[in-house]
Amino acid sequence: MAKRDRRFFKDNFPALRNSMYLNTGSEGLIPRETYKQINKLIKRNFKYGGSHPHFYDMVNFNFSKIPHYLKLLGVDPEKQIRVSSVSEGLNFCFNMLSNNNIKKILLLKDEFKTGILASYAFAEKNKAKLIWADDLDDYYKRLKTDKPDIAIMSHVDYRDGKDNNIERFYSECKKNNVFFIVDGAQAIGNLFIRFPQEIHADLYVWTTHKWLCSPRGLGFINVSQRIKDSIGPLGYHYFATEVFRPPEIKIIDSMDSMSVHAANFIGEIGFVSSMRFLDKKIGIDNILKINEDNKNYFYKVAEKNSIKVEVSDTNLLSIKVDEPEKVVEAMLRRKILIRSIPDTEYIRVSIHLYNNKKDIDVFFKNLNQILGEK
Amino acid sequence: MAKRDRRFFKDNFPALRNSMYLNTGSEGLIPRETYKQINKLIKRNFKYGGSHPHFYDMVNFNFSKIPHYLKLLGVDPEKQIRVSSVSEGLNFCFNMLSNNNIKKILLLKDEFKTGILASYAFAEKNKAKLIWADDLDDYYKRLKTDKPDIAIMSHVDYRDGKDNNIERFYSECKKNNVFFIVDGAQAIGNLFIRFPQEIHADLYVWTTHKWLCSPRGLGFINVSQRIKDSIGPLGYHYFATEVFRPPEIKIIDSMDSMSVHAANFIGEIGFVSSMRFLDKKIGIDNILKINEDNKNYFYKVAEKNSIKVEVSDTNLLSIKVDEPEKVVEAMLRRKILIRSIPDTEYIRVSIHLYNNKKDIDVFFKNLNQILGEK
Repeated sequence: MAKRDRRFFKDNFPALRNSMYLNTGSEGLIPRETYKQINKLIKRNFKYGGSHPHFYDMVNFNFSKIPHYLKLLGVDPEKQIRVSSVSEGLNFCFNMLSNNNIKKILLLKDEFKTGILASYAFAEKNKAKLIWADDLDDYYKRLKTDKPDIAIMSHVDYRDGKDNNIERFYSECKKNNVFFIVDGAQAIGNLFIRFPQEIHADLYVWTTHKWLCSPRGLGFINVSQRIKDSIGPLGYHYFATEVFRPPEIKIIDSMDSMSVHAANFIGEIGFVSSMRFLDKKIGIDNILKINEDNKNYFYKVAEKNSIKVEVSDTNLLSIKVDEPEKVVEAMLRRKILIRSIPDTEYIRVSIHLYNNKKDIDVFFKNLNQILGEK
Repeated sequence: MAKRDRRFFKDNFPALRNSMYLNTGSEGLIPRETYKQINKLIKRNFKYGGSHPHFYDMVNFNFSKIPHYLKLLGVDPEKQIRVSSVSEGLNFCFNMLSNNNIKKILLLKDEFKTGILASYAFAEKNKAKLIWADDLDDYYKRLKTDKPDIAIMSHVDYRDGKDNNIERFYSECKKNNVFFIVDGAQAIGNLFIRFPQEIHADLYVWTTHKWLCSPRGLGFINVSQRIKDSIGPLGYHYFATEVFRPPEIKIIDSMDSMSVHAANFIGEIGFVSSMRFLDKKIGIDNILKINEDNKNYFYKVAEKNSIKVEVSDTNLLSIKVDEPEKVVEAMLRRKILIRSIPDTEYIRVSIHLYNNKKDIDVFFKNLNQILGEK
């Protein structure tokens, strides 16, 4: 870590020069290298046109690297469905399952908006019933008693950073023939950096733009073997329309197919570039260690200041305050970027690898001042 | 048009300095102003972070302009569902209709890949049957005789630029209670620049990245009144998950909701910027006139050169040649960008407002040389 000091991070993430960024869980910072690559892509589009071979040279080169980085993160490229966002991914999950006569969907009460919205949309269209579990134990119980067809939850609770420990739920789902959908938006790069050998969900949606320092625009659905068996071959570059492939259609596995189906290539180019940065400049196995050090220090300083930080399994850290929106605003005036959690009395801080002890000291110093003023 | 001469277009579309761009139907060129705006957006993301208010200032400002430009194009912002691509849009159309007990889908044989793929995907999932019409008259007949639940076609045939004259089909669809889905990818900015008062489809999917000089990443589904009545209120900024809104969910109509659901904002920023360019610098009502002049000149020079150009209702112009791929490659070596049409013996030229008579002269001169060499 000798060379990865404060200067290194400020040089590589210029946003740190303009504010103290403690809000990675909403949107991670983009490294300089990634910014340059996206710029280059847009410049090529501008200079040559978006269907010119010089433009596609760059697109194809970057796409060819995606499987490598997927493998580095521990997922099988052949089991990923490419989506543009977690929201699109969750909707797609429901649509994939729509021919399975879905009558009941199990959710965790007040949990996560994106999953709830996708569930509502599906329930509304398909006259399915939503079942709300009060808490995780109730959820576990209802998997057996309420016989849902789909169970959906997030891997990490975005409000307090707690690990929902999806393993036991998936194991119960498999016993009861329930499709288990997991929103993993806050897990990769935060709870873990390499996926475990077994991913405990039938459909596990994850994104690259929070904890992997990528721009918005690229996410994936990891499908379980039983889902994969039912939908046929997949490739990381296949889109919605190409998942179900009847024999009459020529398999489109050249890069040409991307040009038809991709929204734009910012997500992909950004992911490859940011992963290269994380891999070469930080070392992806150092990320969780850096984050753990930051987190431990955060709890230590909080204790010294007699501020209670909720228990968390990740680097999403929440603190109960009066009028959280006002605290967030006051912090922003001091150029410290955090967020509030809607309908709760919590502010949430998410510390990533580019933060350091000084950031944490400054955060608490300012929080004390703001709370003292009120 | 005095000031909008060759220099004006070369200054505003630098891609024209590097190649003769006669392939707008695949991907239109981005004006300098749009390039600058996208650059600015990415720079802000890089400089402040993607959840910083300074970043969202720009996003919000641009989003607030979208309804204005939708109205300028003749569509009702309240009837648009925002999608990222025509492919996503077509899949979404099928998903919207999936609770209507769809058993039969009518398609036009060999027509358009994106629509065919979406239909296949839906048919595969929902055990629906695909019915293939041999030609437009057969399609019209089958609307009555085959009793499909969904009929799908493109507004303009991407291969030869012919107007499929959707009006009579929609009128027949309404009589027979068929949902009519239209892929309008090649229509806006090419067949028309302002939508007609009545849009002849239940679900009309269109995109901004071909003939409206925008980058990839933004398209819309225009929904008919009968569809709108069945799905409730819509806004141009609503996404898949937010189309079906039960009363339990607070209506999310602030710009905040974009940050959750948008892939990235390139499509939106690009659309607003390119529309501003078309509106202020060209005048959107001049576009079709410029294109018609170009087209007339194209036919004239073709005739002089004894080259047969197929009849077309738009600026998608096709010419039968031996080995079209080789012609495309030879043209590219001469820095002239056109395309071939898969599984046919045609090359396709699509001339947009930034092309002029000289481009057309150069095209035919080179085509003659290439055909002569073979």
